[in-house]
Amino acid sequence: MNTAYKKIDLQDIEFLRSVCTAERVLYGENISEDYWHDELGGVKNPPEVLVRVLSTEEVSRIMAYAWEKNIPVTPRGSGTGLVGASVALYGGIMLDFSAMNHFLELDEINMTLTLEPGVLLMDIAKYVEPHNLFYPPDPGEKTATIGGNVNTNAGGMRAVKYGVTRDYVRSLEVVLPDGKVIEVGGKVVKNSSGYDLKGLFVGSEGTLGVITKIVLRLIPLPKNKISLLVPFPDLNSAISAVPEVIKAGSTPTAVEFMEREVILAAEEFLNRKFPDNSADAYLLLTFDGMSQTEIDLAYRKVADRCLELGAKDVFISDTDERNESIWKARGAFLEAIKASTTEMDECDVVVPRIHIAEFVTYAASLQKKHNLRIRSFGHAGDGNLHIYILRDELDEKAWPKALEAVFADLYERAHELGGQVSGEHGIGYAKKGFLAESLAPETIALMKGIKAAFDPKNLLNPGKVIG
Amino acid sequence: MNTAYKKIDLQDIEFLRSVCTAERVLYGENISEDYWHDELGGVKNPPEVLVRVLSTEEVSRIMAYAWEKNIPVTPRGSGTGLVGASVALYGGIMLDFSAMNHFLELDEINMTLTLEPGVLLMDIAKYVEPHNLFYPPDPGEKTATIGGNVNTNAGGMRAVKYGVTRDYVRSLEVVLPDGKVIEVGGKVVKNSSGYDLKGLFVGSEGTLGVITKIVLRLIPLPKNKISLLVPFPDLNSAISAVPEVIKAGSTPTAVEFMEREVILAAEEFLNRKFPDNSADAYLLLTFDGMSQTEIDLAYRKVADRCLELGAKDVFISDTDERNESIWKARGAFLEAIKASTTEMDECDVVVPRIHIAEFVTYAASLQKKHNLRIRSFGHAGDGNLHIYILRDELDEKAWPKALEAVFADLYERAHELGGQVSGEHGIGYAKKGFLAESLAPETIALMKGIKAAFDPKNLLNPGKVIG
Repeated sequence: MNTAYKKIDLQDIEFLRSVCTAERVLYGENISEDYWHDELGGVKNPPEVLVRVLSTEEVSRIMAYAWEKNIPVTPRGSGTGLVGASVALYGGIMLDFSAMNHFLELDEINMTLTLEPGVLLMDIAKYVEPHNLFYPPDPGEKTATIGGNVNTNAGGMRAVKYGVTRDYVRSLEVVLPDGKVIEVGGKVVKNSSGYDLKGLFVGSEGTLGVITKIVLRLIPLPKNKISLLVPFPDLNSAISAVPEVIKAGSTPTAVEFMEREVILAAEEFLNRKFPDNSADAYLLLTFDGMSQTEIDLAYRKVADRCLELGAKDVFISDTDERNESIWKARGAFLEAIKASTTEMDECDVVVPRIHIAEFVTYAASLQKKHNLRIRSFGHAGDGNLHIYILRDELDEKAWPKALEAVFADLYERAHELGGQVSGEHGIGYAKKGFLAESLAPETIALMKGIKAAFDPKNLLNPGKVIG
Repeated sequence: MNTAYKKIDLQDIEFLRSVCTAERVLYGENISEDYWHDELGGVKNPPEVLVRVLSTEEVSRIMAYAWEKNIPVTPRGSGTGLVGASVALYGGIMLDFSAMNHFLELDEINMTLTLEPGVLLMDIAKYVEPHNLFYPPDPGEKTATIGGNVNTNAGGMRAVKYGVTRDYVRSLEVVLPDGKVIEVGGKVVKNSSGYDLKGLFVGSEGTLGVITKIVLRLIPLPKNKISLLVPFPDLNSAISAVPEVIKAGSTPTAVEFMEREVILAAEEFLNRKFPDNSADAYLLLTFDGMSQTEIDLAYRKVADRCLELGAKDVFISDTDERNESIWKARGAFLEAIKASTTEMDECDVVVPRIHIAEFVTYAASLQKKHNLRIRSFGHAGDGNLHIYILRDELDEKAWPKALEAVFADLYERAHELGGQVSGEHGIGYAKKGFLAESLAPETIALMKGIKAAFDPKNLLNPGKVIG
């Protein structure tokens, strides 16, 4: 792999300033340490220069220059990733997209939204919902950029019913490593016109091209929604109910599971009571639809089924206020767990739905085996678990060792159960080894072949995914 | 491009017979001319040897042999394609998958169906619907194999609401050109574990790998459905209503448009009356859902909107019998048009929904310009048009010339309107030139890079898509 990159010098800075103006080009010590790492913090390295890009043309000119000079380039949104994907491992140029954040077009007839990659996920709903349109993907981290979501193929809570980010990308504008700009896909509903480059750029974590414009597919806004909070006597009975709920025939929008410990942490973190904290484990389900009748039919069947399967009660939230209180707590789980320890790392494997209960029970059992705290919550409906390993008082030597041992167990078991390394957080740098172990060497070779075809000089986000 | 392939000799035949038994290996004149071409017939070439494969192991051994000997290999399902994708342009080995047609597993908890590529599309519904499960993609050609559907990323009528084949493929077993077998994807709902190879194999028309096993995603079977047949005074008012219908907020399962001429042809072909043939143009809509209330709410709003927009009436079909009579006619359109002429060729461009009316009107106007008959029908809801150019009495010289001129006009206009060359039939051999013209050279270069990475000896279905 090519890693003999050119170091940034004053001439390079001059060039970048000529493209982007001086105040948008930060160099050396002027770059905040925030840009050395992402949300998890375990992987750290400073970029040599940080450029706040504002347009495709700027990105294209910078890439053409980097191509000529052999400088690595790392694109970055809000830096909310959890696997080090937006860390400039080899220094070079970091392209900060957070100011390239404009809505370009809402096309109500084709039901598409065209926007720049720096738009925050949280702003998309606000923008489209007054027009009775809906962008279904709903990852927990609302301050992530849509560019980041596209690059990791983020999933989120509503994947059970609506699918993931890839399912909502109609077209992308992409700057190639040599600076050329292409558009893949279109404002069309179907497309069988050659290989699916659009789908390939989605989830490629900035290693195949730099995404500079996105056309998202929207759907009609569901008019009604309802949440059910269902307490169960224990985790196993809660999670075992999930396949039965899905089979009941009315697809819920989301099915989350949570344990009391995580709820208590969130209550403390938010200084706010959860509607109920008496049970060991909970399912949180939502249903949405175009009519109250439709939703009523769906949720009643599921509520009955949960009670048959041992649920202690079913709390119904059918007002915006109640919904908000539950989902706000759910949204704070990650921060609450983080606040309860010194450091943590995470695993977001995805397993077939039938194995969720088995896997979560196994993950919990590792606390005893490895003598540390593990917290989990996640998308029970789609088999994507978020398992957090907490450092607490472990010292600098013990922590990486413990982590390695727990990860080895988790990824091995997930693999045995037909699971995949990442459901939605991506591979980045942190999960590269686990990806390589989980896939056949031929599969990795094909991915490397794609990387070489798209980025022959290995300039784009080097050292990530399979790099 | 490598096309200096080894010719098949008796030693090769011996080898193939040792793998597959003699009666499943047909050679030279024993190969029916049916295997020289696909459904459209314009592209013809005989394979040197036809092998009726039955297992992944056979395919793997044959590919390893072909790799060693440098023999091209063309996979084929039912041969119902329309772009020559399953024609053995360079001779060599044709792998016939029609007998590798077993259902392997229906997993009701993970809601997946595992099957061999030779299973016919029409048999999937019969297999899963008694279990209250549903495979949404619904291409018109029900005798196509699922392997063919996956290889072209077939779309079908229900794409408006449910998406296309790619959206329902959870995992694939693929034999690589050197005979190695990999699995891509899994029985998981989300996946951000490296590049999306699964999505790339879907729609690659047998040029990147040979698909030997498919895991499909199923969803709960909608319990109720209804069709609306809506006559309009003319084509333009019919098609102009489509975006308004979609915007009304309840996504129909399908929105087809049809003109009286095509209906009359179908009536004659089937010797059976259509419910109405008095209007110039029709929309045919379906709605499905989990309750009658849900459907009633949806269709009434749409029916009212259509009447406001000039519809002459709205015929409601809410019995299986009535539905079948309408959809049977719809299903016969292609055959009926074919029976009305000596030969035909087709264009299945997809344009943004907002431009459907404009494009269909333009296509109709070409009849006068080029002095021939053009018939069109198709998926008005998703912008995927099927436009048939009829040869009628044109002679051998005039026909290709006329075709070239009409195609040039159609693809150019589609491109101007932000459309793509193929909505669902694929590129194969027949549309290669139009694909190359419609995409940027950089985009074609990336596709060629992928092809070279996956199939460095160019053995898999050579001469197709971008070959």
